[in-house]
Amino acid sequence: MTTTTQYPECCAKDNGDALGMNATATSPISVDGTPVAGELYTIPPRCGRAVKLKKGQVIKIINTPGSQVCDTWFFNSDDLSEFASMEHTRAFIDKIIPQPGDVLVTNQRRAIVTLLTDTSPGVHDTMIAACDLFRYSNMGITEYHDSCADNMRMALNAIGLRAREVPQPLNLWMNTPVNPDYTISWLPTVSAPGDYVEIRAERDCVAVMSACPQDIVPINGCSPKEIQFTVAG
Amino acid sequence: MTTTTQYPECCAKDNGDALGMNATATSPISVDGTPVAGELYTIPPRCGRAVKLKKGQVIKIINTPGSQVCDTWFFNSDDLSEFASMEHTRAFIDKIIPQPGDVLVTNQRRAIVTLLTDTSPGVHDTMIAACDLFRYSNMGITEYHDSCADNMRMALNAIGLRAREVPQPLNLWMNTPVNPDYTISWLPTVSAPGDYVEIRAERDCVAVMSACPQDIVPINGCSPKEIQFTVAG
Repeated sequence: MTTTTQYPECCAKDNGDALGMNATATSPISVDGTPVAGELYTIPPRCGRAVKLKKGQVIKIINTPGSQVCDTWFFNSDDLSEFASMEHTRAFIDKIIPQPGDVLVTNQRRAIVTLLTDTSPGVHDTMIAACDLFRYSNMGITEYHDSCADNMRMALNAIGLRAREVPQPLNLWMNTPVNPDYTISWLPTVSAPGDYVEIRAERDCVAVMSACPQDIVPINGCSPKEIQFTVAG
Repeated sequence: MTTTTQYPECCAKDNGDALGMNATATSPISVDGTPVAGELYTIPPRCGRAVKLKKGQVIKIINTPGSQVCDTWFFNSDDLSEFASMEHTRAFIDKIIPQPGDVLVTNQRRAIVTLLTDTSPGVHDTMIAACDLFRYSNMGITEYHDSCADNMRMALNAIGLRAREVPQPLNLWMNTPVNPDYTISWLPTVSAPGDYVEIRAERDCVAVMSACPQDIVPINGCSPKEIQFTVAG
């Protein structure tokens, strides 16, 4: 972990960013998504990044501001139609939120990554779809709004890949508790600045992260910020 | 609701049913899935059926034995890549389980059906993937086991359709509560014989139902049974 990667000023100052102003599609960490071990990468506010992980490598995802949600996906490098599936993982680990030691399994119920470490209180989400244009349109936004779904697509495109769908993400640090009456609340994170998770690849995979641009419901404290990550091993 | 449809004896007496013995693929309710209004259809134990619904039609799905889970999907008739999405629905209704009056939305966050009536205590599931060959293989089953995922595929095939994925189903009557420590329990249903839901199509759609063949965890009381349905309107 030596330097902070340079990145273009890419994210919106308000909700009215026109399509194409989010530079995720043109800001890969490298041509094919291969990381430099130990380098600290920054995902600017409202943007996404994809990174290739070899089996055994560990990615450390850092909630630098503490208040930021990071939508996270893991795709099998050899077949992007196989990916970490929250609905299969919940059935596999008998939990709605993974804890250190738990694996995430794919839609073929095979281990793809293991959550090794979590310095935060362990409040994450596996149940809420990535925000997308439909979400913001339903909320009355009439112009383009950055979204985790678009960030996922653009981050993959930036390293020459394409997935045929946007799976349910692992929403790191997202605080959307289920109440006894089955309702869901949308709350700010309970994580502290610098909290991180470490996740080990159990097979070659592509990790995609989006620093969630949601600025209408308060899951990011109404102020989307950056996420950082580094890869070891 | 006049007659009970005839159906071939199609489901396994044990876990060792060979591939092809489940007759879902060859037992459509009609050539193209169009129902006869008012007819009572029976989905035999461990099997699935697909039915086309026109906008405004209401399907009544009946838990005849009370103890049976019914995995249920709704696909846009014009584009099967758009379907009722539990992860988008949870965000849309701010609940993990729909209640009477709630809509289910698609992966484009558009209403596809509305839950009108529920005579049961309202315990259903939207979080656990459909059982599939991987699930039973992980549980130590070495021969073919009927599964909701295969039933969904076969039921669609039986009316000449194919979906490119098996979405997270609405698992009617499945009792898999989330505990305060985030764990999930797998329990028998709390519904009574004859409990039913009524669901209205908000656009032309294909409903697919599977009388869940899970006989290892006790969600069906260890004895998979039939589901019945009828279409009005």
